[in-house]
Parts: sequence; C-alpha cells; structure tokens
Amino acid sequence: MKINNDWWKWGSAEKRKSLKNYPLFGDHLQKLWGKAFDEMQPAPEQANIIADEQRVAFIQKLFASELPQIKISTDPAIRLTRSLGKSYHDLVKALFNLPIPLPEAVIFPGNHDEVLRVLQFASLNNIMVLPFGGGTNVVGSFDIAEKAHALIVFDMSEMKSLLSLDEKNHVATFQSGIMGPEIEKQLNAKGYTLGHFPQSFEFSSLGGWIATRSAGQESSSYGRIEDIVISLKVATPVGAITTSGYEGDAEGINIKSLFFGSEGLFGIVTEAKVRIHPLPENKKWVIAVYPAFENGLDTLRELVQMDIFPSVVRFSDENESFFLSMLSHQEPSLMGDIKAFVSKQVLKWKNIEKPNLMILRIDGKEEESLAKKVIADSIVRKNKGFLTGDSIGKKWETSRFGLPYLRDDLMERGIFVDTMETVLPWDKLADFKKHLLKQLQGCSAFGLEKGILLAHISHVYTSGASIYFTVITAQDRKQPVEQWKTIKALVTGNIVEAGGAVSHHHSIGRDHQPWYLAKTDALTKKLLLSIKKTLDPERIMNPGNLFDE
Amino acid sequence: MKINNDWWKWGSAEKRKSLKNYPLFGDHLQKLWGKAFDEMQPAPEQANIIADEQRVAFIQKLFASELPQIKISTDPAIRLTRSLGKSYHDLVKALFNLPIPLPEAVIFPGNHDEVLRVLQFASLNNIMVLPFGGGTNVVGSFDIAEKAHALIVFDMSEMKSLLSLDEKNHVATFQSGIMGPEIEKQLNAKGYTLGHFPQSFEFSSLGGWIATRSAGQESSSYGRIEDIVISLKVATPVGAITTSGYEGDAEGINIKSLFFGSEGLFGIVTEAKVRIHPLPENKKWVIAVYPAFENGLDTLRELVQMDIFPSVVRFSDENESFFLSMLSHQEPSLMGDIKAFVSKQVLKWKNIEKPNLMILRIDGKEEESLAKKVIADSIVRKNKGFLTGDSIGKKWETSRFGLPYLRDDLMERGIFVDTMETVLPWDKLADFKKHLLKQLQGCSAFGLEKGILLAHISHVYTSGASIYFTVITAQDRKQPVEQWKTIKALVTGNIVEAGGAVSHHHSIGRDHQPWYLAKTDALTKKLLLSIKKTLDPERIMNPGNLFDE
Repeated sequence: MKINNDWWKWGSAEKRKSLKNYPLFGDHLQKLWGKAFDEMQPAPEQANIIADEQRVAFIQKLFASELPQIKISTDPAIRLTRSLGKSYHDLVKALFNLPIPLPEAVIFPGNHDEVLRVLQFASLNNIMVLPFGGGTNVVGSFDIAEKAHALIVFDMSEMKSLLSLDEKNHVATFQSGIMGPEIEKQLNAKGYTLGHFPQSFEFSSLGGWIATRSAGQESSSYGRIEDIVISLKVATPVGAITTSGYEGDAEGINIKSLFFGSEGLFGIVTEAKVRIHPLPENKKWVIAVYPAFENGLDTLRELVQMDIFPSVVRFSDENESFFLSMLSHQEPSLMGDIKAFVSKQVLKWKNIEKPNLMILRIDGKEEESLAKKVIADSIVRKNKGFLTGDSIGKKWETSRFGLPYLRDDLMERGIFVDTMETVLPWDKLADFKKHLLKQLQGCSAFGLEKGILLAHISHVYTSGASIYFTVITAQDRKQPVEQWKTIKALVTGNIVEAGGAVSHHHSIGRDHQPWYLAKTDALTKKLLLSIKKTLDPERIMNPGNLFDE
Repeated sequence: MKINNDWWKWGSAEKRKSLKNYPLFGDHLQKLWGKAFDEMQPAPEQANIIADEQRVAFIQKLFASELPQIKISTDPAIRLTRSLGKSYHDLVKALFNLPIPLPEAVIFPGNHDEVLRVLQFASLNNIMVLPFGGGTNVVGSFDIAEKAHALIVFDMSEMKSLLSLDEKNHVATFQSGIMGPEIEKQLNAKGYTLGHFPQSFEFSSLGGWIATRSAGQESSSYGRIEDIVISLKVATPVGAITTSGYEGDAEGINIKSLFFGSEGLFGIVTEAKVRIHPLPENKKWVIAVYPAFENGLDTLRELVQMDIFPSVVRFSDENESFFLSMLSHQEPSLMGDIKAFVSKQVLKWKNIEKPNLMILRIDGKEEESLAKKVIADSIVRKNKGFLTGDSIGKKWETSRFGLPYLRDDLMERGIFVDTMETVLPWDKLADFKKHLLKQLQGCSAFGLEKGILLAHISHVYTSGASIYFTVITAQDRKQPVEQWKTIKALVTGNIVEAGGAVSHHHSIGRDHQPWYLAKTDALTKKLLLSIKKTLDPERIMNPGNLFDE
C-alpha cells in the first residue's frame, strides 16, 4: 500500500527535529562510534500490510445493515495508522517494512451509548475490539500478531467533549477521547488545570491515561491519573458501569481501580469525572547541580519524607545532564545556562566535575511556596547541591514536550533510542543504576562500552521514586527487532530482579507481559481472568494483552 | 448465660463517663423532655444467647483432630463478646436482652499461614467464617441473623507484630490484628507515626480499618487507610494473594483496592505494608468561631481547593458547638475556654450568637506550617471567622477518644444516641443539613421538635467533605429496635436522595445494605459476586453482608 513515508512519526511535521540541529551531540556520537550516522534509511513509501479484504467486506456489510449510524472507515491508510503505537518495536516495524496486520475497520463513536451498542454488537458477532486513544502507547498494546477473528479499532478521538464543569466543587466531567491540550485549553479558559502532563501530553488521551495508569510530569503534587479521577463511566460488552462518585467514601468496594491499567481488556472507559485545580498562582523554581547522583536522591527523599512534594521533579544523572548540555543549538540550552551562571563562581563549580542537574517546581500561594522553597534550598545545600538561577526551569518547561520529535530522525540515521522505567525504594536507586550500566556494558546489543545510558528521577513517593532510563546506541540494521528484544529483556530482567515494578507509568502491554506474568501470583491471575470473563465473556477486548495469556 | 452486665460497653471500665459528670448537659435534656433520665436500665446479668451445643461439639472435635495447633475457644463468654459490634442496634441487643446467636468457636490465629490453613479447612468443611478485629464495627457487619452452618470467628488480636520497619524508605509492615495504640507505640519509639486516628483508634485494628475503608481524624493530611497502605497480604479460602508492592507503579491492575471495604467477604487481610511519617515537628492550631455554618464551609473549601490540607479538621455546627460547651465539668471545656477568651472582646463576640466552632491543625516544618497558618488565618477572617487561642485545640486532642464512653451510660438512662455520616459536594452540605433536620423534626421516633441533631465536618476533599451527624433523643424503651430502624432509614434515605455516599468511613455492613444495593448498578453487583465466587467458592466468608444478598 502506498503511503507517505513519515506516517509513523511523532506529532506534527513542522516540529520535527534532526540530529543536525544538535551538532555537539552529533560530534559526541561520531567520536564514540567512529561514524557520522548520516546514512539515512527512511521508511519505504510502500507499506507492508497484511489485510484480509474478505473480512473487511464482511464488516462493512454488517455495519451498513446493522449499525448504519456508526461512523466507520475501512480506508487502508486510516487502518494502518491505528495499527501501531510508538514503542521502539512499533517504529522498527514501520521503518524496516515489517508486515503489519491491519484491523478490518476503524470506527469513530461519538458517545457512551454508541460505544456500548457497538461493543454489545461485536460481542454477539465475535468481532475483536481494540480501543485507540492518541496512539502513543509504548508497551505494545496494539501488537496483535495473529487475528483469529475480524478486528475493529475504536478510535475515540471524536469523544472529546467537556460534559460538565462544576466550579464550586472543582470537578469536571470529560469524554474519554479528549487529548491533553484540549483538556487544558478548556480548563485554562476558566482558570483551572487538570495538572496531568505526561511526556505524551500533546498526543495522548484521558482514556489512554486511565487504561495505562499514567503519571504526568507534575504527578508529585497533582497526583497520578488514578488520584485525579473521581469516577468512571465504562462500556463493556455486557453493559455499562458507573463507579461510585465521591472522593473519600466508604461505600463498599470501589471498583474504579480495576480500570486503571486495564489496557482495554474489560471494556472502554467512555467518561471520567476528575478533580481540577486553580492554575498555580506561583511557580517557584529550585534548580541545583550536585557532584553525585546520591546527593540529589538524598535531597528528594528528605523533602518528600517531610511531606513537601514539588509539582515538578526532574533530576538527571551525570550522563543525562551531559546529554542535555549537548542539546545546545536551536533548543533552549539548559546546561549552557547553568555553565554561564556557574562560571562566575569558579571556586564552587570546580568541585562539580560531572554535574547532576535537578529541576524542582513548587506551586502554591506566595507564602506557602516561598516557605517550601526556603526549606528545599536548605536541604539542597545540606546535600552538597549548588543552587543556580530559575531560567533553566522555565526553559525546561517550554521545551518539555519536544524531545520525542528527535527520536524518529535518530532511528532513520541508524541510532537506537529506547526508554524504560521502574519504581524502586529510595535506598536501591543509586546502586541499581550502577548495576544496570555494568550489565548493559557486557551486552553487545548495547554496544558494550560505547552504549549510552541516561537516567533521571521524575516521580517521587514517600517510600521510593521512579527512575527512567534512556538507552542510546548504534542500531543493528540487520536485526533491529532482535537488538531491541535483547536490550529490553536485559533491562526489564534486571529491574524485576532488583525488586522494581515492571512498569512505572507505561503499563504492561505485550512488551512487559512475560515479566509481569512471572511475578504475579496464581490467584491474582485467576481473579483477573474471572473479572474478564464477567465483563467480556466472548473475550473480544484486546485479547492476548496484559494478563490474558 | 450469666455474665457481667457491662460486657457490651466501650473500652476500659475506669474511663467510663456518666451523664452525672455533665450537669449542664443533663439540665438541658431535662428541660427539653421534662424528665431527668435517671431511671437506669442496665443490661441483665443473664445474657440471652442462642447456642447450638451440637455444632460446638462438632467444631471442637474437628479442630482437635485436624487442626490441633490452632488456638481455639468455645467459652460462651468469649463467643458472646465476639458476636456484636458497637452499633446502636448491637448495643440495644445487649441492653434489652434480645436473643444473640453465638458462633460455635473463636479461633486466635498467630500468623498468615495459620489463617490460610483454617480458611481452606473451613471451606472444605462448609464452616462459615467471620473476621473480628477490635469489635468496634458500627454497621452491623457481625449481625448474622440465621446460621445455615457452623460459624467460627477469627479473632485477629494475637496477630499484632511489627514485622519490619524500613526507616530509610519510611515503610513498615504489620500483622493486621494490631490495634491503633500498639502501632503508634512501636512507631513513636523510633520517631514515626502512621497518622491514622479514627474515633475508634484505641480499640480498632489495622485489618478492621482496611476492611471498612476507614478514615482517621487526620486523614486530610495523612490520607485514608487506602492511601496509607502500600500493599496487602491476604488469605482466602482458595489461597493467598500478595498485591503489587509499590507506591505509584503501573504494573497492570492493582487489585489491592478490592480489599478496602470488602468487610471480610473475600478473605482475611493478614499483613499490610504501610507508609509511615516522622512525628510532626510542629503543630499549629487555627481555632475559630463563625456566625454561620456556611462561613466555615467556605473557609474549608477555599483552603483545600488551594491545596492546603490541615491534618486535623473539626468544624462543628451551632448545635454541636453548643453541646460541646455543655460538656464543661471534668472534661476539658472547649467552649468554656472560647467564651473566656471572647468575653474580653465583647464587641466582636456579640455578632456571634450561636458560634460554630472550627478546630484546624496544620503540621509540617516550622516555615511551612507557619506559612499555611498565615494563609488559613486570613481565609478564616475573610469568611467572618473569629480567631481564638490554641488551648482549645490542645484540649480537643487530649480528649478526642473520650466521647464514646458517654454513650453507654446515656443508653442505660433511656437516651438514644446514634451517629450517621456521608460525603457530599461542598455546595450541598449546608442545605442538606437543614433539610435533614426538617425531615427528622417531622418524625416521632426522633421526638419531633425535641430531638437533637448535631453535625460536624471532619474530612475534607477538593470536591466535597464528610458531614457527620449525631442524633440524640429519648429512647423508645418499648420498641428500641424499631425506633432505631426508623431514624436510620430516614437519615440514610435522605442522604441517598441528596446524592450523598451511603457511608463515608464506616462501610456498608448489613445496616446500609438496602440503600447500597439499590444504588449500585447491576453489572457492578455481578462483578463483585464473580470476584466473590473466585476467592470464596463455598461462600463461607461473612455471608449475607455487603453486596452478598
């Protein structure tokens, strides 16, 4: 099938980045690998699709006669763009022209009742269903290798309404297909924010956040999506559920939580009632560099254990800080700013050869945020941190959704970039990072000593924190999938062995399934399957994903 | 069966209170009803038990031969004291000598494995099981009217160990039978607190808090029990479950939440890993009186909607404030202090004829708690609140667990006292309180105009708050159960009609079951039953409670 060869890329074309925009980074890679990474290998214009035209015709006819009011498309291009997420594996499939099985149709429901009607219809007719929000899934949730039956994708993008806004009680109800920017636009207009800003914010949906237990960049103060959502309306193949609608009730068991991280296995969340907040009156930045990763960890741990949770936490290890310092052309330069500031104070700076950069933002009323900043500043200093100016924080904030745009170009150049994350107790974070790097440096898929491992802490809890890794190395263009699988298995295997969560904020999908299944007890799996059987007796919802072996 | 006639009373004998200790309150009641309430009617010394000695012998023999290592008692007094909770209905049964069916035995498991073994054994032998923590349940969870099979109570009081304390990551693991004071004693010794202080704190257990979705008096900052617990170990009739053990993971669906509010229907929580906190460095009090209930509500709403959550929130309406002012002998006198303070400033005071008393406590580092207090003070003043001295807060704190001791004496004197609570959106609270009083004043069981309705706000959320009602009236000594049922039905019916939760922090039990079942959708009920069937296929766990019709 002929298609524009950038169909698989992130976001909007005009915002795309190239390694050429970052010559320092390009030079660094060239020095490391002895090659320029300038052999571009774009995706072909002929997509390698697996389509079953008989099934397509069957679905078309069935919907035309039975559900003529449902908006449906069988256009192959539309079907193809709803067949992949944005995991490294997904992009490899597009870039290397691997076969991609298409769904038979994409439907665009407009409201809860339509979703319910089509799900019940699909269940009766043994049609498989895949919910699709923004398509930014990075854990292989859309990766349906074999299809025993016809499959339709529910594209939720038309369900994007703000259904109600209750300014007195700070509650809003949205349809689940609404994307991050539209939520904020609607709320900001009235002086509110949802406070949920995952890296994918610009292109991911409320329903997707719920299905994957998403955590935004400001989760430490506004909460993860499961803290933000008060109640859910869900359509399943056997009927609708509306969960108990209060903050802090004891009205029996609240089954709301079963849908967080359920990845479309139980039904489709159609509406969510959420907590909203006034736009922050004050944003106080605490920006610091530390001589060692451990010093920053101690700072964060001490802060949250005294119940001070910054809204933004971004603490990069020395490798990631160095990487950020190389992104110094065209992009706002974070480390450039720091160096300029620090060079005035050479005596202090010289103790920090390889700075670890920390960005904190503390919101609140003037008196409160100032008091917290004073406390935070003193804890930074106590832990050998060197405080710098605010501008770095503000620049981070304006550029924070930009980085995914660079990955597509790197992949076309033969550079492997993937990210993995977990949550670990405070006292295990530093050692695990060292251990993981050592393990990777023994692995040829990682490029041994030439591989790059970046790390940052971005979500903090009383008992631990999320650590987020970025792996950069030369792509194995002959065996790109095998290379990815090797690295993924090495990182996830080590995470699980260290006692970390299989996922911190991207959920399980098919990519994490083996580790998740291995560490989940038999009775929990049995329980989840019994819930599945009750809500989806014909097993049409995203079969084979998550706990569904 | 002969037994000490105070076996059904609250707590320890030496702390008991009598109406005689509160002459102002006594005078008030006498004026209102034209009688002195001095005809004491204590419980008889001959308890009216229903015991099946054949079943007892069967259980005794079975355990002796099959589970000889399990500690078991068939002493009727021990069985009787594990047959009731502390709801008004429970106490009426003791006081009025209504028949109380006894369990056949009480077992005292020592650890998770013993619980698991006995549950599996009970399931094979069709023996019903009731978990019992501190016995302070107030929603009729132990109210087994008919017993189709033998019943054993699991008294969890011997499972009271601190299993591990991780000071670096602020995590502790306890056995579930441990009581509030023992938790705090163990943690305080190392400088920590759990921060969970329900009214029943002195006599309720960690497992009970989990089974009922408990909220403590400091939940607004430390969280409800479901926020405090990181993970659970559960024994069910078909095996054990250990839930995913992280704060903030996205490791699939976290089934932990199914056990909050499950009231012993799925199994028995045996261990819980919890977040702990350093003992507060500072406690800043904000004590104020308001001319109207609405003013205090506005203060609380504005505070929490700017993300300032005091650790203690206690806002009494004018009736409850007046009631507190009458408890002015022997007990620390709250309103006495206020009046003394305010009398110096007569001009301000005279605008507040019927004060509504608010007690807030703000914890944290000195700078932070001070900043929050400054903000809170200004919001109090903005909403017509009149700030008074700290001593009232400190007195409230030292006497806060004392009030339940008075109820038993009132009941013996022929005074009806019961409490009910819900959670409602901010903008419905004041009107609902007025509406409820009006409804009650039309009800003869409430004593029409002579009935007393006290209210306070004690748990606050972004979108609403819990309102807690105390009903005081003359007891119908001829039909005490019918009187209670009439009042309970009137209050709960009105709560549900107004859109409130059936329970805010006491769970459903048998007492709330009709309203809970009526407002829960069919598919949710089906789902809960399917979970029940998976974990408890023989339906031995607390049958007939909660959703189990």
